Amino acid sequence: MSEPEAKRTKTTPAKTAPAKDPEEEPASEAKVAILRIHGPDKKGIVAAFSQLLYGHGCGIINAEQSTDTAANLFFQRIAFDYSTMHTDRTAITHGVKEVCDRFSMTYSLNWNDTKKKIAIMVSKYDHCLWELLLRHRAGELDCEIVAMISNHEDLRSVAETFDIPYHVFKVTKATKAKVEEEELKLLKDVHNVDLVILARYMQIISDNFCRVFDHKVINIHHSFLPAFIGGRPYHRAHDRGVKLIGATAHYATADLDEGPIIEQDITRISHRDAVNDLIRKGRLLEKNVLVTAVKAHLEDRIIVYNNKCVVFD
Amino acid sequence: MSEPEAKRTKTTPAKTAPAKDPEEEPASEAKVAILRIHGPDKKGIVAAFSQLLYGHGCGIINAEQSTDTAANLFFQRIAFDYSTMHTDRTAITHGVKEVCDRFSMTYSLNWNDTKKKIAIMVSKYDHCLWELLLRHRAGELDCEIVAMISNHEDLRSVAETFDIPYHVFKVTKATKAKVEEEELKLLKDVHNVDLVILARYMQIISDNFCRVFDHKVINIHHSFLPAFIGGRPYHRAHDRGVKLIGATAHYATADLDEGPIIEQDITRISHRDAVNDLIRKGRLLEKNVLVTAVKAHLEDRIIVYNNKCVVFD
Amino acid sequence: MSEPEAKRTKTTPAKTAPAKDPEEEPASEAKVAILRIHGPDKKGIVAAFSQLLYGHGCGIINAEQSTDTAANLFFQRIAFDYSTMHTDRTAITHGVKEVCDRFSMTYSLNWNDTKKKIAIMVSKYDHCLWELLLRHRAGELDCEIVAMISNHEDLRSVAETFDIPYHVFKVTKATKAKVEEEELKLLKDVHNVDLVILARYMQIISDNFCRVFDHKVINIHHSFLPAFIGGRPYHRAHDRGVKLIGATAHYATADLDEGPIIEQDITRISHRDAVNDLIRKGRLLEKNVLVTAVKAHLEDRIIVYNNKCVVFD
Amino acid sequence: MSEPEAKRTKTTPAKTAPAKDPEEEPASEAKVAILRIHGPDKKGIVAAFSQLLYGHGCGIINAEQSTDTAANLFFQRIAFDYSTMHTDRTAITHGVKEVCDRFSMTYSLNWNDTKKKIAIMVSKYDHCLWELLLRHRAGELDCEIVAMISNHEDLRSVAETFDIPYHVFKVTKATKAKVEEEELKLLKDVHNVDLVILARYMQIISDNFCRVFDHKVINIHHSFLPAFIGGRPYHRAHDRGVKLIGATAHYATADLDEGPIIEQDITRISHRDAVNDLIRKGRLLEKNVLVTAVKAHLEDRIIVYNNKCVVFD
Repeated sequence: MSEPEAKRTKTTPAKTAPAKDPEEEPASEAKVAILRIHGPDKKGIVAAFSQLLYGHGCGIINAEQSTDTAANLFFQRIAFDYSTMHTDRTAITHGVKEVCDRFSMTYSLNWNDTKKKIAIMVSKYDHCLWELLLRHRAGELDCEIVAMISNHEDLRSVAETFDIPYHVFKVTKATKAKVEEEELKLLKDVHNVDLVILARYMQIISDNFCRVFDHKVINIHHSFLPAFIGGRPYHRAHDRGVKLIGATAHYATADLDEGPIIEQDITRISHRDAVNDLIRKGRLLEKNVLVTAVKAHLEDRIIVYNNKCVVFD
Repeated sequence: MSEPEAKRTKTTPAKTAPAKDPEEEPASEAKVAILRIHGPDKKGIVAAFSQLLYGHGCGIINAEQSTDTAANLFFQRIAFDYSTMHTDRTAITHGVKEVCDRFSMTYSLNWNDTKKKIAIMVSKYDHCLWELLLRHRAGELDCEIVAMISNHEDLRSVAETFDIPYHVFKVTKATKAKVEEEELKLLKDVHNVDLVILARYMQIISDNFCRVFDHKVINIHHSFLPAFIGGRPYHRAHDRGVKLIGATAHYATADLDEGPIIEQDITRISHRDAVNDLIRKGRLLEKNVLVTAVKAHLEDRIIVYNNKCVVFD
Repeated sequence: MSEPEAKRTKTTPAKTAPAKDPEEEPASEAKVAILRIHGPDKKGIVAAFSQLLYGHGCGIINAEQSTDTAANLFFQRIAFDYSTMHTDRTAITHGVKEVCDRFSMTYSLNWNDTKKKIAIMVSKYDHCLWELLLRHRAGELDCEIVAMISNHEDLRSVAETFDIPYHVFKVTKATKAKVEEEELKLLKDVHNVDLVILARYMQIISDNFCRVFDHKVINIHHSFLPAFIGGRPYHRAHDRGVKLIGATAHYATADLDEGPIIEQDITRISHRDAVNDLIRKGRLLEKNVLVTAVKAHLEDRIIVYNNKCVVFD
Repeated sequence: MSEPEAKRTKTTPAKTAPAKDPEEEPASEAKVAILRIHGPDKKGIVAAFSQLLYGHGCGIINAEQSTDTAANLFFQRIAFDYSTMHTDRTAITHGVKEVCDRFSMTYSLNWNDTKKKIAIMVSKYDHCLWELLLRHRAGELDCEIVAMISNHEDLRSVAETFDIPYHVFKVTKATKAKVEEEELKLLKDVHNVDLVILARYMQIISDNFCRVFDHKVINIHHSFLPAFIGGRPYHRAHDRGVKLIGATAHYATADLDEGPIIEQDITRISHRDAVNDLIRKGRLLEKNVLVTAVKAHLEDRIIVYNNKCVVFD
């Protein structure tokens, strides 16, 4: 399925790290953990968590909070420095769990010393893929790209350029369910993937796939959802005569194009633009919207609730 | 129906013309006519019209053209100076008609010495109304505002501030058809209106109204159509968790919110925004999108075809 | 100086409150105080303040923080509900002061039961003025507009429409210093003004004025500063052939157009735009940028340091 | 100077053409010529050229015109189909010249059957380079990339990936003049280059270079000019506390950063952004602004006059 190792290692002209920007400041090597919590809005939550972290010797680097007053829900993302921690991770995790129980909150706690593993699924379009790979290499996406999966051979050379294993799974109606099982095995068991990116992957993934990777599959749809759900959105946008086209990155769920929206953007079009111009202008939107969404996910800035996303800055 | 003249003339504190911007250049007083043509794309059209105008002594000030290659349609807007015309309007109109017949084109020809007459229909929201009135007074909208129609008394004082007749037509289910007839009579027979603007008017106008004012009713809808057609779009946008909200100005047609789109714009929102924030941010969008669309119509920059708008710059 | 009361009360057609948006949710009537702090970044600050407020029975509604790592400075804005406070304002203020002393922080603490008083200074342009007045009336700007000052009579009728005292101070080179003294007396002693808005006021205010109202004068400049500092920016933008024009709202300081920037925005222009088009497009920018900046100031979302503004969301 | 051929041909994994978008319409293979004219605005120009082309059997595909009324200058770009021409290029060119002489116009006439040849100059940053190469390969930039020039070895592997000759010219103060002569010889004599793109090339090119490639060198500057002319614009933007950063593509002239502006764009920043964030956000701006400008140049949509650019749509 994957290309032979021998061949891949020969052809890697572009994989050298990019030149460091001489105008850039050196990055700090802080030990940062991200705590995300959400649940019913109550007095004392902020105090409880900041006190807890202070008690363990951790400094809060950044904290953002938000409230959905209609739903009476509270959300918070705390980035804290654990280099000065005078207990240990187990103790902090235990403390967090305890406070969450007291306030009926849900939490998620990530330490930044393990990179997330991601896989990219593609078909034939390469614009989103290149943007992901190049911005990863520029240091903008903090993760490890462990695999690419495609239903076509077309983009193998791109994978090789970046030295990423490229797996082809041909899909037919008859084999679809069985193939997806193999894909899941590869993603879960072999690569232990944390996030799957559908970079204009032209197959619909199953409900089961979405359940296995719950809120861990990011798709890019080439319209400003909920307008133009489904196929050929640029053609339909052209037919309708809209003056803006858009792109939407969202978590894939069982309902096609109905998952929680992470990021959207639009660009202006005019009567002068034919369908091909929409497709061309849309490519720019798609790749940038997708990378922005992936970046938010990787930095643990998203909390999903009620099929919506809180996306902290 | 209208308020007594006596009262209106007393209270006009704000109607004085705004100060002329001292940085602004004096406007030229050119005699300009606008010719819009469209039809099947054929060789020789551009040459034929430019030659025709030249032959009558008219200089082309600006000409924009566009082609819908899929539909094989050609569109052109020519602004020409007729101050140096050495024939007359009848002769030019005759010539235009002749060339159009030869090329199976449709045309529209407007001379700039008669201002278009417009009426504004409102309910209780005043933001679009104020923007229209203030930018009209600032000289940005070249027209005469001859009437306001409302189903409520609320905005009478605004009309009085600008010395515009304000007509109230209460609408109930039972009287709706009859009332609309009266409105049409007022707009058509009394005021001879060229354009009706629905400035967040909260009643659905009938198919008949749309037919009488065919592509002469501009509505502002508070979503980026075709998303959130119909009522309460901001609530539905909030429920869906979109990251952008929009507004759309379009010609009203028999199909609700399905008419030709003239202008759209969006603004970014986040998880922090409650429905009220969407409504507040949306007001800015609505008023600016509406004025932009009205301005395009007044300047004869729009050609409608296949339920779409060519909007020249 | 001001117009006679008798005359003003007669002519107020537009001052009725706008219709309430039926789609809008009723506003909550929370008792909210805003605490802003900044100073050297140290561990424990967040915990200390959240603990303090919790100890007095106050719930944190929102808290945003930020760090300038290069300058090693920490900034925080905490909005807290004091309706459940079981001590009093003096005690909380005392506590805040104590914690600030411990961490060498500066603080500012505002309770939302007293509206800020603002004055608007204008010359002849009215677009910024109208936007301020209308959005204030729509409930978007939480303040009391207590006075307008102008060097011309032109906009008196607008003031009357909204029932705001209008004071004219003619300025000549000879009288400038003396007149400004009178203006300051009026603003300070008579009206006790918290914020002065220069809404395209065409006089340069003195260093002394800026000192008296330190970071309490907001000016709108019609360029994207630092481009086109000084006069006739649209003309210079046109000469330079830029493809974007901008507007900048900033606190006025002794250095002309060099004060801390609060908000900026731009709009796209093209070779088709003459200087007058830039002026027209710029008006939209100016009024929206100014209102956004004023809104941020009124909501205590700004912290000024090193001639820069932290503007919380 | 250039890398050995042998090595380059072995390692070209990414140079395969991208998959054709199945949603895209097939491109037409029209024979199109572009005529650009400008000069004093006079009556009859439009008619004369459209008549001329019609007389030679050519259909006008698109025509855009513009007037700088202050300077009394007229500009036009006409795209015409010469597949049906019943004379020849010499005859048309002769006719164009004649009409231009009559109206004191300047013209430029390009036939689309010869691709423009471009060279890209780079130092160590690769983001602009990749965007140019990928969008060229996606068919968006109609040209032939014949050479890359750099003062460093760093980006050789990128050139190899796309099979483009890569020439390294080390520059020191002492050798600068001599090296530039060699570069010019390579660009002019060897490669016969039509356009030089400075894709974040970190050397200042000489006045002589600019003269030799008059309005044929496009540079990308990382600020919204005329703000932050010269070095380290992101640092200076951060110091000034602006709320927007920008990028500007312009023709390089003898005056540094003062050449005619082709395209600009901005992105919003906040107090949360450190200099490195500005650099990262700026990369997106720079690459997109540069490609947009290059595309306009390649499509003969630019007319330069008075150190400004008319950029037709």
